[in-house]
Amino acid sequence: MILFNSDYLEGCCPQILQKLQDTNLEQTPGYGCDDYCESARALVRRLCGRPDADVHFLVGGTQTNATVIASVLKPYQGVMCASTGHINVHETGAVEHTGHKVIALPSVDGKVSGADVQACLEGHFGQDGPEHEVQPGMLYLSYPTELGTLYTREELTDFKRVCGKFGIPLFVDGARLGYGLASEKCDLTLQELASLCDVFYIGGTKQGALFGEAVVICNEKLRKDFRYFIKQGGGMLAKGRLLGLQFETLLSPEQGSGTGAEGMGNSLYVALAREADRKAAALRDAFAAAGCEFFVQSFTNQIFPILSPELVSRLEGRFGYQLWRVLPDGRTVARFCTSWASSTYNVEKLIDLLKN
Amino acid sequence: MILFNSDYLEGCCPQILQKLQDTNLEQTPGYGCDDYCESARALVRRLCGRPDADVHFLVGGTQTNATVIASVLKPYQGVMCASTGHINVHETGAVEHTGHKVIALPSVDGKVSGADVQACLEGHFGQDGPEHEVQPGMLYLSYPTELGTLYTREELTDFKRVCGKFGIPLFVDGARLGYGLASEKCDLTLQELASLCDVFYIGGTKQGALFGEAVVICNEKLRKDFRYFIKQGGGMLAKGRLLGLQFETLLSPEQGSGTGAEGMGNSLYVALAREADRKAAALRDAFAAAGCEFFVQSFTNQIFPILSPELVSRLEGRFGYQLWRVLPDGRTVARFCTSWASSTYNVEKLIDLLKN
Amino acid sequence: MILFNSDYLEGCCPQILQKLQDTNLEQTPGYGCDDYCESARALVRRLCGRPDADVHFLVGGTQTNATVIASVLKPYQGVMCASTGHINVHETGAVEHTGHKVIALPSVDGKVSGADVQACLEGHFGQDGPEHEVQPGMLYLSYPTELGTLYTREELTDFKRVCGKFGIPLFVDGARLGYGLASEKCDLTLQELASLCDVFYIGGTKQGALFGEAVVICNEKLRKDFRYFIKQGGGMLAKGRLLGLQFETLLSPEQGSGTGAEGMGNSLYVALAREADRKAAALRDAFAAAGCEFFVQSFTNQIFPILSPELVSRLEGRFGYQLWRVLPDGRTVARFCTSWASSTYNVEKLIDLLKN
Amino acid sequence: MILFNSDYLEGCCPQILQKLQDTNLEQTPGYGCDDYCESARALVRRLCGRPDADVHFLVGGTQTNATVIASVLKPYQGVMCASTGHINVHETGAVEHTGHKVIALPSVDGKVSGADVQACLEGHFGQDGPEHEVQPGMLYLSYPTELGTLYTREELTDFKRVCGKFGIPLFVDGARLGYGLASEKCDLTLQELASLCDVFYIGGTKQGALFGEAVVICNEKLRKDFRYFIKQGGGMLAKGRLLGLQFETLLSPEQGSGTGAEGMGNSLYVALAREADRKAAALRDAFAAAGCEFFVQSFTNQIFPILSPELVSRLEGRFGYQLWRVLPDGRTVARFCTSWASSTYNVEKLIDLLKN
Repeated sequence: MILFNSDYLEGCCPQILQKLQDTNLEQTPGYGCDDYCESARALVRRLCGRPDADVHFLVGGTQTNATVIASVLKPYQGVMCASTGHINVHETGAVEHTGHKVIALPSVDGKVSGADVQACLEGHFGQDGPEHEVQPGMLYLSYPTELGTLYTREELTDFKRVCGKFGIPLFVDGARLGYGLASEKCDLTLQELASLCDVFYIGGTKQGALFGEAVVICNEKLRKDFRYFIKQGGGMLAKGRLLGLQFETLLSPEQGSGTGAEGMGNSLYVALAREADRKAAALRDAFAAAGCEFFVQSFTNQIFPILSPELVSRLEGRFGYQLWRVLPDGRTVARFCTSWASSTYNVEKLIDLLKN
Repeated sequence: MILFNSDYLEGCCPQILQKLQDTNLEQTPGYGCDDYCESARALVRRLCGRPDADVHFLVGGTQTNATVIASVLKPYQGVMCASTGHINVHETGAVEHTGHKVIALPSVDGKVSGADVQACLEGHFGQDGPEHEVQPGMLYLSYPTELGTLYTREELTDFKRVCGKFGIPLFVDGARLGYGLASEKCDLTLQELASLCDVFYIGGTKQGALFGEAVVICNEKLRKDFRYFIKQGGGMLAKGRLLGLQFETLLSPEQGSGTGAEGMGNSLYVALAREADRKAAALRDAFAAAGCEFFVQSFTNQIFPILSPELVSRLEGRFGYQLWRVLPDGRTVARFCTSWASSTYNVEKLIDLLKN
Repeated sequence: MILFNSDYLEGCCPQILQKLQDTNLEQTPGYGCDDYCESARALVRRLCGRPDADVHFLVGGTQTNATVIASVLKPYQGVMCASTGHINVHETGAVEHTGHKVIALPSVDGKVSGADVQACLEGHFGQDGPEHEVQPGMLYLSYPTELGTLYTREELTDFKRVCGKFGIPLFVDGARLGYGLASEKCDLTLQELASLCDVFYIGGTKQGALFGEAVVICNEKLRKDFRYFIKQGGGMLAKGRLLGLQFETLLSPEQGSGTGAEGMGNSLYVALAREADRKAAALRDAFAAAGCEFFVQSFTNQIFPILSPELVSRLEGRFGYQLWRVLPDGRTVARFCTSWASSTYNVEKLIDLLKN
Repeated sequence: MILFNSDYLEGCCPQILQKLQDTNLEQTPGYGCDDYCESARALVRRLCGRPDADVHFLVGGTQTNATVIASVLKPYQGVMCASTGHINVHETGAVEHTGHKVIALPSVDGKVSGADVQACLEGHFGQDGPEHEVQPGMLYLSYPTELGTLYTREELTDFKRVCGKFGIPLFVDGARLGYGLASEKCDLTLQELASLCDVFYIGGTKQGALFGEAVVICNEKLRKDFRYFIKQGGGMLAKGRLLGLQFETLLSPEQGSGTGAEGMGNSLYVALAREADRKAAALRDAFAAAGCEFFVQSFTNQIFPILSPELVSRLEGRFGYQLWRVLPDGRTVARFCTSWASSTYNVEKLIDLLKN
């Protein structure tokens, strides 16, 4: 059985395994204070065009979201988020566990609108005696969203403007950032993203690493004592070098990527994501050709075809996917993910099935 | 420079690396629901003689301690702990972060006494209207302690009796459990430990794994919904198989360990620890022969010689160790750790220095 | 200017003031362990028909809600609540501050439906691997709701059935309980309410006391160590007798209520509420006669007429009310509250204005 | 039986009761936004010589401590405190409940030393990589202490200097502030206290009010959004005016205190405390004359005589006191408290018993 259920089904890209092997017996200090982390930090800063940024490595997404949010908010503040946002629906209340409300905003195709964000902020700060309500203290977006969609540069610029007006930081969850940057529909660069938000992270777990998320704190006001937050939240890996060397590997130029050109687009990280996006696009086309509608139009590594009962039967036992929901008419919304590890062979086998 | 600063300086034992390589492209479900985790759970249960135990894998020690403690305590309860205990002094208040007081008890050589535990419990429950104080809700011990010392079976039995009298669970932090079980002074087996405490963990990070701690919940009352706690606390690794396959490797019989004999003593885990303990003992003897006193008598992989300023100078730039504290007389208490990765060559080089 | 903004504008009913005077120099133990509290507890138990219930006195509503909820939920659980519920929108995230998500359900006229509660519970418990989401752990209702509406006995019975099926306690916020029990539309008694929910409270602050809420824990599983929660949450009043004597006064039979008849309906508490409800009804009729529509049909002490700009002008400087919201068509939704302290004179002055 | 167990046995001073009566039917806005609160705030500011200070009224001590501390600390910070401090031993972990460690420092007679505070701060900030430990983020003192003792102006000045060096705020719990300011051993004024600490409170509950604590935030950096903290912590009283009018009464010049002289020393608050301190001194002399030693030398309203078993017998059933602890030699450490409500008659009856 071939699985497209998620983008964390396999181990890691071979280059990382090789590096683990090569460096295994080196002695390094713990907790992210080693040379691999330092080198990976330098790479991140350069790729983001932010030589001043603070860069920290954590292990997983829920941990990273809760840690960043807790480091930004005051105890009486909450975080604005799409109702479909990961922190609102899929992290077992990790944010509330740190004492903060997730203020769910309406979402369309996984995205919030600038108007809704503005209304939320004006509604709170525009009233007399707002202290009876949770104060919105930051905006959380995911790029790509949980539905595989992307904000445009214009939308992000608008969020930045609104948030800036109220002094509210903007945080971008980039658990699948590479699949976004590599998308045919992406209209911004990593450097632009870094300039539009206050803090974001570059996801590793779903993008070719064994695990790991690289937090980039652009806004200097949010940097103080962040390592305390990591440690307190249980996110400070003893053998921190494992994180450093994975990101160093992923963010370095892809081998054989040509004549020394450098930049995120040339990195192994984006190269792997680009290939996964292409495979997702091929699947999308095949589902469309097979007559499927889509729950949402997405152009990253996640696609959401709506399957007839008959197609569900044909896939059964041969191809795995994530059941997203069952529609009232009996059809099934499915999520198919590709990743750095999806083989052309497996993708073509699925396309073959859809053709017949 | 050769480092003895800690037991998490290197990567992992080669058997684990090999297994990562061998299984890299297998597709497995996430979050600990894969066959490697299942197999490792079965191994743990068998080695503990507890076919009923719940076994969960987390990433690191601070995370594990905070998660287990938060899963056991009610909001108004605290955890009793040696004043030198890791959760009291070295985890940035991760326990308090979840709302619970660490009730520090007096400690000698890293250990609490049954009498102090009993006094704490009787002091609280014996009074009228105790609700103005934090209720002691569990006892946390580390085995070995942070000072490398060990509780005896008799001491643990006494803790169990006292805790049982007040209905208080006993939790053993086994971040370095193997070094304890392999110690020449250890007088109990893993199965006995499992029968004496309500919940404990088998540490991987400091014992040959890249990372990972295996929580064993013996007391069935503490099992309900533990996975929610892991997820909420950010400890549920997406590629959970990485934890399963590491523990499966460590806990399997050492290759070439003989004619099918099985048990914790035969495992790679204990074999690696035994070798590390032996090397620590060799260093201990060498420090003693060189005229050093010890801050504490320990028989595991951590030793605490007291260094004269002259010896400090001779070590400088050649051998690293952890500075524990400076005594009023100017001498230095140092911690030297061995591990699965300490080479005979390096140990002998240090012994040579001490001889001359 | 005459204010109808809320039901906590004045001090307390004269009977309470008199009792404060009469008992001022008595010496009593603190923290709710005095005879006044004991006597008030006995009264509550008798009126509820629950001789076994635990009764505790706290100071205010937000404190009571957060304390009760934190005492019931496990750390990974959340509380289901109408989107308009007080804990969701007007308590500055006090519930989230204790680590729990408020799971907002759709609401109509301030009420949730049994179907939505059931869907929420089935959605969580019906899935495989639900530990990635917050577990719904209790249902919070307000009676009357924040919009002055009432659940029927049938609706409450249905909630009890659904909650019982999933082992979820039902908590009723009775900050304005008396106004509900005294309403012309109320179809249940205090004893019935007590039998339909697991824990609820009898509000004092808005019903004639200076302050105070009486928590009644019907479900014995929720009683253990509740005083620890009160103390830890800052709700244990040193001079606890102030709470006891206020509730003793309010819940005793109204003086002159006849020949020894006893019961909630005869209490000063309900008598004061009944009079306030009657005055609210008189205002409601007057607004209707003046051509006003209502934002919601309510039959307790809160009414929500929709005011034309012209009427807003006429009220200005003469009568105060709470601005609820401004409608797109420019009309104003207002909240007018009556209370034990609303004088017939003031009510008639407002009716006069509406007549002309 | 005459009780000296605590200073919150009775109701309130008659002047407050009268004011409650006089104002009972006035309509005021809620939550501390009324004229009584405004007037009391102005009085506090004037008496403190701090026209810029923020003044807030809360209900009780545990609530006030937890709220102030949570408003000052960052999530990874703890509060330094005498091991005997109220927040460490008598508030059911209310501080830990908000996520913060109480860092207990050695105490002598209820007091910490400047040297210990300095050592704690230097120990943390002087190390490399301190993020593995809780960061000390503020200093909590009580004035008077829980043992009735007082810091001198010099000691407080030293605390201010040390704290200032590390940018750490100093918080003074003044639950019994008046008894301190009125003490024969007090060497500082309210204005001096206000200039030496960053935030403190003027206790009402134990000093003649029904309840209430007045928080004075001197350091402007600690003022932002404090009302959110009060509300979230459940400490915002709906009928806030009750707090305002009590403090207005207590802090106004004592009636008949002479020719218009004004100041804290002339206030009803200090006048009542002075009288209580005098009565405690009279009891202290009587216990000493009866041959009792003292657990601690205190010069406020709390005294701690050590009672022989024989004296315990004679007191039994006639005079109540708080049992502090039993000494190994069988004698009893007792706490006797006087208050604004202790009558000369009762005090003399106890003195009579001690004389015979």
